Amino acid sequence: MNTPEETLDPEDWEATRILAHQMIDDSIRHLDDVRSRAVWQDMPDHVRAHFAMPAPKVPQPLSAVYAELQTYLLPYSMGNIHPRFWGWYMGSGNFTGALGDFLAAVDGSNLGGGTTGAALIDAQVVGWFKEIMGFPASASGTLTSGGSMANMVAHTVARNAKAGVDVRAQGILAMPQPLRFYASDQVHSCHQKALEVLGLGAVALTEVRSDDHQRMDVAALEAAIKADIAAGIKPACVIGTAGTTNTGAMDDLQAIASICKRHGIWFHVDGCIGALLRIAPRNKAMVDGIEQADSIALDPHKWLHTPFEAGCVLIRDAQLHFETFEMHGDYLQMQTRGLIAGTFLADYSFELSRGFKALKIWMSLKENGVAKFGRLIDQNIEQAQYLERRILAEQKLELVAPVGLNIVCFRYANGRSDEAGLKALNTEIMLRSQESGLAVPSDTTVAGKHCLRVAINNHRTTRADLDLFIDAVLKVGAQIEAEAGVKA
Amino acid sequence: MNTPEETLDPEDWEATRILAHQMIDDSIRHLDDVRSRAVWQDMPDHVRAHFAMPAPKVPQPLSAVYAELQTYLLPYSMGNIHPRFWGWYMGSGNFTGALGDFLAAVDGSNLGGGTTGAALIDAQVVGWFKEIMGFPASASGTLTSGGSMANMVAHTVARNAKAGVDVRAQGILAMPQPLRFYASDQVHSCHQKALEVLGLGAVALTEVRSDDHQRMDVAALEAAIKADIAAGIKPACVIGTAGTTNTGAMDDLQAIASICKRHGIWFHVDGCIGALLRIAPRNKAMVDGIEQADSIALDPHKWLHTPFEAGCVLIRDAQLHFETFEMHGDYLQMQTRGLIAGTFLADYSFELSRGFKALKIWMSLKENGVAKFGRLIDQNIEQAQYLERRILAEQKLELVAPVGLNIVCFRYANGRSDEAGLKALNTEIMLRSQESGLAVPSDTTVAGKHCLRVAINNHRTTRADLDLFIDAVLKVGAQIEAEAGVKA
Repeated sequence: MNTPEETLDPEDWEATRILAHQMIDDSIRHLDDVRSRAVWQDMPDHVRAHFAMPAPKVPQPLSAVYAELQTYLLPYSMGNIHPRFWGWYMGSGNFTGALGDFLAAVDGSNLGGGTTGAALIDAQVVGWFKEIMGFPASASGTLTSGGSMANMVAHTVARNAKAGVDVRAQGILAMPQPLRFYASDQVHSCHQKALEVLGLGAVALTEVRSDDHQRMDVAALEAAIKADIAAGIKPACVIGTAGTTNTGAMDDLQAIASICKRHGIWFHVDGCIGALLRIAPRNKAMVDGIEQADSIALDPHKWLHTPFEAGCVLIRDAQLHFETFEMHGDYLQMQTRGLIAGTFLADYSFELSRGFKALKIWMSLKENGVAKFGRLIDQNIEQAQYLERRILAEQKLELVAPVGLNIVCFRYANGRSDEAGLKALNTEIMLRSQESGLAVPSDTTVAGKHCLRVAINNHRTTRADLDLFIDAVLKVGAQIEAEAGVKA
Repeated sequence: MNTPEETLDPEDWEATRILAHQMIDDSIRHLDDVRSRAVWQDMPDHVRAHFAMPAPKVPQPLSAVYAELQTYLLPYSMGNIHPRFWGWYMGSGNFTGALGDFLAAVDGSNLGGGTTGAALIDAQVVGWFKEIMGFPASASGTLTSGGSMANMVAHTVARNAKAGVDVRAQGILAMPQPLRFYASDQVHSCHQKALEVLGLGAVALTEVRSDDHQRMDVAALEAAIKADIAAGIKPACVIGTAGTTNTGAMDDLQAIASICKRHGIWFHVDGCIGALLRIAPRNKAMVDGIEQADSIALDPHKWLHTPFEAGCVLIRDAQLHFETFEMHGDYLQMQTRGLIAGTFLADYSFELSRGFKALKIWMSLKENGVAKFGRLIDQNIEQAQYLERRILAEQKLELVAPVGLNIVCFRYANGRSDEAGLKALNTEIMLRSQESGLAVPSDTTVAGKHCLRVAINNHRTTRADLDLFIDAVLKVGAQIEAEAGVKA
């Protein structure tokens, strides 16, 4: 009368084992050969069609599923594992991290909490980041999917701490005063998104003007704070950016820390790009003051090259962090013994179930040591300076923003100053660069000037790659001008 | 003058390849042998001490890092990969999913958006869930870390849709009326947490009483809605639960859908436990009505046994979803060609950078076919019914809630009715069960009665495992009573 029982485990582990070895070998070849391939390529219609098929009704051997991936997935990746990928801002991954994700899934533990080795590694990795950032051991933190969620966790804690009411219970409508957050006009868009999600609205974010180096004007910040106080708005949090997305600019964290201290304001640092400079011997002074923050967002999937996803937020006051997120249903009461005893990780996060992101970070930090990651950060900054020199030496190229970090904003100008024409030209250079597979830069607009943007967060990039790119920009730029009938 | 360049790529790919093969072989053995090990074991102090060491200064060979993991991590896992793990609520993973996480990291693509095979697979998997749930192709969705974030995405869209003001811009303070969300008193705690994060506060959640079968009392729901309207509070969203965490109870989704339609209220279904019943041939009727929802949260890391993390939210009105999250900084302007063209995935999510969670789901759905996952769901429900019969046949055991799904709530009562004593006794049974490594149940309280809770979301469980557990409960229960001097 009972139905025969079945399982997802393979009937033939040996065949699975052989196939998995093949995946390892192919993956190593894929990474080892990366330089010989296009950074990115657009996909033909038949590939798109393949991914439009409905939910699979019939089973197929794993080997066939894998063959599909080799044909349809791997040739059409984003390209951030390639030495000439410098678009937007991301890390380039690493093989140890990929093994870490595999082993995490084999271990299987849920990082919501519990007495497991996984939970200890999670706490240890957060502890390493506290140590690196100069935060006290009493601080708390949690790993997140990335910077957006790390910043949003911090803003939730800051909002609740400054609300002037039990905002968890009563909501924002019960707040005695509106709250204000401050950031420079170069701040990442995720902050506005977070404040929108948190119900404070974009109105709660004051974007303070930045100076010629795209750093927050701290006099303007203090003026904005005073004006808000006078208007009955409560200054809640200042977001200092340690490395802006546009140009890598560094806000003056020391100055912001003083202002926050003076006015009793939460000091948050968005260090998704720059916080890890703390481990870079030649450039660490750039983030002096970060250790004074009330909270820091940082991104292991950027300069630690952890495969996606891996973000982290640290909160100086663990109790405020706990009070923001602690929650236990009837079905999740803590014990003093057994599997659910001690600290419960979900009490520090939006998330209850959470994956074992810590393992890939842990493995590659142990394998390489912190110092090597520090050298690789310095290396990317040195490469950006090299690229800056190359640009300054070329008459047809215009450097659009000072290079302070690892982001280089420039354009093919050839002496022209018509912004619309230059935008069209440089957009075309960017697109042809991507489409040819030679390199992936992205673009942005700095102080009204559209430009190419090269963000070197890549452990595979060499100076020779940058040379190749500059040569291509000059050639393609001239070519597009010729097509348009512009005289060189 | 330039520093010699280095990379994270291994100097010796061949050694790495051999070690990775070893990891595959060990992992297969770890899974194949799982039944011979304890489900869970507490860890000795020297293991805890090992995970308290500071950030690694010196590099060590990957083989040594891996050896540490074998000693300190894998023996101390949560145990959810084991056939006798039934605690809280989680899936048990699968090897193909682990390979998926590895390959996703090798591919490396960022699922924030872009023209990549990864983005197409992500969209395809979301499309499969729309298809399975009976949602139109025009609906949208996004993969999340799990149910908490899936529900929070939906609530954000619902809040913004019902706010009566541009809440993204102006915030909750500008809303003309307070909003109310409704759910049964059995609702998962993540909903309250989400409303707290969203700035609506716990006050915005009305917990409607549940009936004797732990289902929302829909008459009480309608009365609460009418009372709110009369009081000037705007009913925004009803959360129907398809499978409660406590007991697996199913709210009457059809009835809730009608009420929502009548009053113009957003109808959200928390289907993290039960939505995937849609693919289970013998039990699918339980979630009839889910296809009428405005949004659905579901969890591939539960009944699809995707390794953590993998949740999903579907939103019927893609435009409302887009309008809630769409945001592009200067550095992220869309193009009509090149790498950033077409749909941008982050416009449907809190997150900008996002990992390639879709791959592990895609691979195991293709390998096994949807039908097999459906049979495995039916199998777990049949096992719960088997366990129920075993409990009803034992005089010393008391079934605490009707078994409607795959969750069995019972206790060792032995004719007693002193709640405090029974709670202490059954807590001790749970802890000894965990500590002995025999089985991991958890506990909860249903209608005032504390009980053991067995949530069978496990493709490795057999009826024989349940027999073993019942025998142990009877034995350990009698033993604890004997220790306390209670007569049998």
